[in-house]
Amino acid sequence: MNTFGFSLRLTTFGESHGQAIGGVLDGMPPHLKIDFDLIQTLIQRRQGGRNAFVTPRFEEDKVEFLSGIFEGATTGAPIAFIVRNNHAQSKDYQRGVFRPSHADFTYFHKYGNVDFRGGGRSSARETLIRVIASGIVSPLLQDLQIQSGLYAIGGIKAETIDFSYAKQSEIFALDSKIEHQQKQCIQDAREMGDSVGGVVLLSAKGKLLGLGEPLYAKLDAELARAMMGINGVKAVEVGEGIKASSMKGSQYNDPITPQGFKSNHSGGILGGIGNGEEILLKVHFKPTPSIALPQDSINSSNQAIQIAIQGRHDPCIAIRGSLIVEAMAKLVFADMILLQKNKRDFR
Amino acid sequence: MNTFGFSLRLTTFGESHGQAIGGVLDGMPPHLKIDFDLIQTLIQRRQGGRNAFVTPRFEEDKVEFLSGIFEGATTGAPIAFIVRNNHAQSKDYQRGVFRPSHADFTYFHKYGNVDFRGGGRSSARETLIRVIASGIVSPLLQDLQIQSGLYAIGGIKAETIDFSYAKQSEIFALDSKIEHQQKQCIQDAREMGDSVGGVVLLSAKGKLLGLGEPLYAKLDAELARAMMGINGVKAVEVGEGIKASSMKGSQYNDPITPQGFKSNHSGGILGGIGNGEEILLKVHFKPTPSIALPQDSINSSNQAIQIAIQGRHDPCIAIRGSLIVEAMAKLVFADMILLQKNKRDFR
Amino acid sequence: MNTFGFSLRLTTFGESHGQAIGGVLDGMPPHLKIDFDLIQTLIQRRQGGRNAFVTPRFEEDKVEFLSGIFEGATTGAPIAFIVRNNHAQSKDYQRGVFRPSHADFTYFHKYGNVDFRGGGRSSARETLIRVIASGIVSPLLQDLQIQSGLYAIGGIKAETIDFSYAKQSEIFALDSKIEHQQKQCIQDAREMGDSVGGVVLLSAKGKLLGLGEPLYAKLDAELARAMMGINGVKAVEVGEGIKASSMKGSQYNDPITPQGFKSNHSGGILGGIGNGEEILLKVHFKPTPSIALPQDSINSSNQAIQIAIQGRHDPCIAIRGSLIVEAMAKLVFADMILLQKNKRDFR
Amino acid sequence: MNTFGFSLRLTTFGESHGQAIGGVLDGMPPHLKIDFDLIQTLIQRRQGGRNAFVTPRFEEDKVEFLSGIFEGATTGAPIAFIVRNNHAQSKDYQRGVFRPSHADFTYFHKYGNVDFRGGGRSSARETLIRVIASGIVSPLLQDLQIQSGLYAIGGIKAETIDFSYAKQSEIFALDSKIEHQQKQCIQDAREMGDSVGGVVLLSAKGKLLGLGEPLYAKLDAELARAMMGINGVKAVEVGEGIKASSMKGSQYNDPITPQGFKSNHSGGILGGIGNGEEILLKVHFKPTPSIALPQDSINSSNQAIQIAIQGRHDPCIAIRGSLIVEAMAKLVFADMILLQKNKRDFR
Repeated sequence: MNTFGFSLRLTTFGESHGQAIGGVLDGMPPHLKIDFDLIQTLIQRRQGGRNAFVTPRFEEDKVEFLSGIFEGATTGAPIAFIVRNNHAQSKDYQRGVFRPSHADFTYFHKYGNVDFRGGGRSSARETLIRVIASGIVSPLLQDLQIQSGLYAIGGIKAETIDFSYAKQSEIFALDSKIEHQQKQCIQDAREMGDSVGGVVLLSAKGKLLGLGEPLYAKLDAELARAMMGINGVKAVEVGEGIKASSMKGSQYNDPITPQGFKSNHSGGILGGIGNGEEILLKVHFKPTPSIALPQDSINSSNQAIQIAIQGRHDPCIAIRGSLIVEAMAKLVFADMILLQKNKRDFR
Repeated sequence: MNTFGFSLRLTTFGESHGQAIGGVLDGMPPHLKIDFDLIQTLIQRRQGGRNAFVTPRFEEDKVEFLSGIFEGATTGAPIAFIVRNNHAQSKDYQRGVFRPSHADFTYFHKYGNVDFRGGGRSSARETLIRVIASGIVSPLLQDLQIQSGLYAIGGIKAETIDFSYAKQSEIFALDSKIEHQQKQCIQDAREMGDSVGGVVLLSAKGKLLGLGEPLYAKLDAELARAMMGINGVKAVEVGEGIKASSMKGSQYNDPITPQGFKSNHSGGILGGIGNGEEILLKVHFKPTPSIALPQDSINSSNQAIQIAIQGRHDPCIAIRGSLIVEAMAKLVFADMILLQKNKRDFR
Repeated sequence: MNTFGFSLRLTTFGESHGQAIGGVLDGMPPHLKIDFDLIQTLIQRRQGGRNAFVTPRFEEDKVEFLSGIFEGATTGAPIAFIVRNNHAQSKDYQRGVFRPSHADFTYFHKYGNVDFRGGGRSSARETLIRVIASGIVSPLLQDLQIQSGLYAIGGIKAETIDFSYAKQSEIFALDSKIEHQQKQCIQDAREMGDSVGGVVLLSAKGKLLGLGEPLYAKLDAELARAMMGINGVKAVEVGEGIKASSMKGSQYNDPITPQGFKSNHSGGILGGIGNGEEILLKVHFKPTPSIALPQDSINSSNQAIQIAIQGRHDPCIAIRGSLIVEAMAKLVFADMILLQKNKRDFR
Repeated sequence: MNTFGFSLRLTTFGESHGQAIGGVLDGMPPHLKIDFDLIQTLIQRRQGGRNAFVTPRFEEDKVEFLSGIFEGATTGAPIAFIVRNNHAQSKDYQRGVFRPSHADFTYFHKYGNVDFRGGGRSSARETLIRVIASGIVSPLLQDLQIQSGLYAIGGIKAETIDFSYAKQSEIFALDSKIEHQQKQCIQDAREMGDSVGGVVLLSAKGKLLGLGEPLYAKLDAELARAMMGINGVKAVEVGEGIKASSMKGSQYNDPITPQGFKSNHSGGILGGIGNGEEILLKVHFKPTPSIALPQDSINSSNQAIQIAIQGRHDPCIAIRGSLIVEAMAKLVFADMILLQKNKRDFR
């Protein structure tokens, strides 16, 4: 169950404090140029240690491609790549202790063991593989524009949406006017030894009409699955999202004209298929579970303990999470584009 | 892409106005008694024509089992079943016209055609198959209690949660005190030729600890996919859901004691695996897209038209939608229980 | 595990003496005309009761299409179809007795039960569904010519290969000169209350270059799997087949010239991919296990019994088996054609 | 299409002359001890350079495990491993030339390119990954005994079968009396610049009753697929194999007694399910396609050439092929054992 996708399948492996993490991407058509610069940029954007708002734990992530690429382009064979874990500091982690709202407890009970060094397989470190894979598939996405940014932090919401601004913001903020308040919210939390939640906005534009495979691989269902599978995500909204449930049909429905849709409450998806309008998702991240404040917990012998997690943690996982949201969206869209091929070609 | 599940796979087929709809359920272990009474009850609960709050279109749904059952129990072979479409009134539907916020437009552009009779494959009629399948898998769910009800209608929210009350309510209301207002909201909408959205609450209790398959078949991710794949669903929340994104870690984290978790903000899932606490999902349905009020739209020749959809439609799809939410949750949990088998048995 | 195929998936269901058997074919592109006449012809060719060389049990097989077809063409939705079991004569079958070289014994031990009426799910009746499905996929196969015939019966081999003759032969014999001896062999066996084995030759010609998906869905591997999965098949040979293992490289290798291959010992497949030459498979069927001669066996209480199987059985399953060989080959090739689409289109 | 298996999935990657080859094995239950010594033994048995009968090309294959193992046992996470390609001598290979009966021609036409260095992805080097994986899964196979050996070389057949002898034989010969002739046959071929085919016998004994998943993952079908997918295999026989097609039912059928089966013409499989008897497969390998004798061929510009392949090649691929046959059988059986779990546990 470590494989994602239908036509385009990403299999990932590796634990946060093991030898290496890696992925195998199978299903890429041949003759596509790999954009190594883009991949490097994506890796760097995800890295910690960049500024005061993310983890100071800088990982010098060097990706090594092992197969499937010849003279800079895909061959049609599976593309494998690994990243060594160099900066693993297991001493940051206490063995045999369940960190509240972490996966330690559930992994222990599911598998009857757990590699306690930093979450092992459940660590967000694995998301680096998804980011790299999203860079590899970029040649499939030339007709789409997929962007993300921070919509809200600790309840402080953007009022205008500017994806270009987000690209250069330290916290990927969508609204330059609100950014300062959002940063302050993060710093306040960090100083208190606390953390804070956030909301990522994902936008996709371009040749989206017809993408999505009814009935059990609908575009919105696959996006929801991809997003809810990211560490710390607790809610996913499409278009108007939760507001839709308190609206009337006459307000919500998007009228159609010969020139296109008059509104986009649907968020670009009807019946699980892209309708050509902008696809908009809101992805809600919980606050970082690792906080310095003391918390009640137990150890693996079921004894009560108090735990104050020091280590080097993101005060707001939604920030770096926005890159994973974007990466997963890219993987879903690339897969859907390949799946749609057979539909169109036999007309 | 008409198959759902990993170890337990439901393949569905059929259009709303074709010969029949049906399903093939593969992966059921042998020697499990089929609860035909339960299945009949589930079918009846889903039927229209029961009261003033759902579609007056009563479908006399008679399920015919074709295979996989011998002397009332599963044999291990695939279980196929069909339901004939008797009450199909194609004349209710206009050919060549795109109903706003329906799938007509996207199916037309995806497949280059569309079976215009009532939505064809995109019709909610297919959900009957999911309901029947959820009844078949019930012997796998003996250690779980899975319930649903209406949390909100048109923004009017339940204040107390009572799943037993929901079972007997005409609108599956969770709060008997609020039910009247919610009913009034529906009737007002109907009288205006309009419709209204709603929120379904899904609860699962029991032996949930350890269910879910990291990293790409996490319990919350699979539930989100299942829910977002239901017609009209636009948002899915787990536990605190969207509130999580505006909380602090110190508020959100669930402390652990030797006696169990002190709170359940996580909604029963950590790292994609059940932690044993109650699993709680909020599933947001948009208002019924079919409304009697006039709307702007186009036909398949891209000419502007006005459309006022008469027909016999649910004024609030969330009501009957709550049964589909429950059905899909049951299919996900049954699958996860089978997947977990191999984990436990080799210790 | 009742689904076959990757891009094009056939799910089958039904037992020989249950209500009905059927299939769901998912993945067919839209807008393909269904050749109902061809499907009817295929069904009739498979039917018993045609002549003295197959079972006198005539099944009036009427296929009912339930979904996925609109105005005679595919819509892109799953195509479901069923065939009722009318001529089921359960009295022909003894309950609780294991017929030698049948699946009764293994189904009993695998599932702890068995629907003893005529083999249930293990009966060759299910192959009717494969034949119908192979007719549905025929529009995908316009660039291929796929044929089959009887190469040998009871060790009596064809000396010349004539697929056109096979089409009109009562026993699908490939060699009109040898046909008489082969028929005599069958009649002798039948008169003795015995049965006889046979070999089917399968040929595919046309646009085969490039078909097959390395490394774990190679064309020869998928064909071998499809053939070995047919009831009664015990060996599969590609090209020279078993002779290859006693040859020298200098004899076996197929030299290449600018005009094409000089020989075809490889049987049209290199590295799991079609090389454009004729694909040739030999599929070896064991003799019909149901014979009238007395045999030692046991019942489900492990008591020794003697069994003489009367019923109405094929004296040589390879004859009707040739139609299943052809059907399975068609399903494999159609799937491979769809899988190859994504490879070619992104150049 | 680089993944093998259902419950237990092996994804492989890497080209013969790229950076590394490797695999990801997903689905292993936790808490199983890895037998590193066994894995090392298997790797060494597969290596060339051991004696005069295999390739003198010695690859110092060092496996590096990257994930899924903690303190010497499985964790339930995917197990990734790689082997670096150190001894790659690309100069042995001519670029742009199609070697007869190799995959060069078909890969070129399928993908529009080919990594010409030693076959790339189509090279038998990838089989090392299968061998390593078969060692990892060995804790699942404790109730089975799976063995292989050389049954025939160049048509010279074993008369007695002795798997213990095969283990110590330089050519894995099953019959010590015939071994000398078989060796002579190989040496003669090598001296002539030629190569020779061979037949591998595979035996499985133990708790096989009930293994195999009807109807589309039958035990014999999956074994046939696994074997036919090995480089150079052109025929697979189960039990009597091709002889079955010339036998009578009264000769072929295996009578059953309260003490067990009287004979085993079926080769241990009935209806696609293990019947508890020894499973016997014959796997036919073509002669090594790389020969030093001059052959007619073409280059990628379709010009006629003559090619005499020097390099360092196995004179008989069946010898080392027997290890791959055994490895693939182990992967199939381990998968089937996991699949059968759900069947048994719900009784």
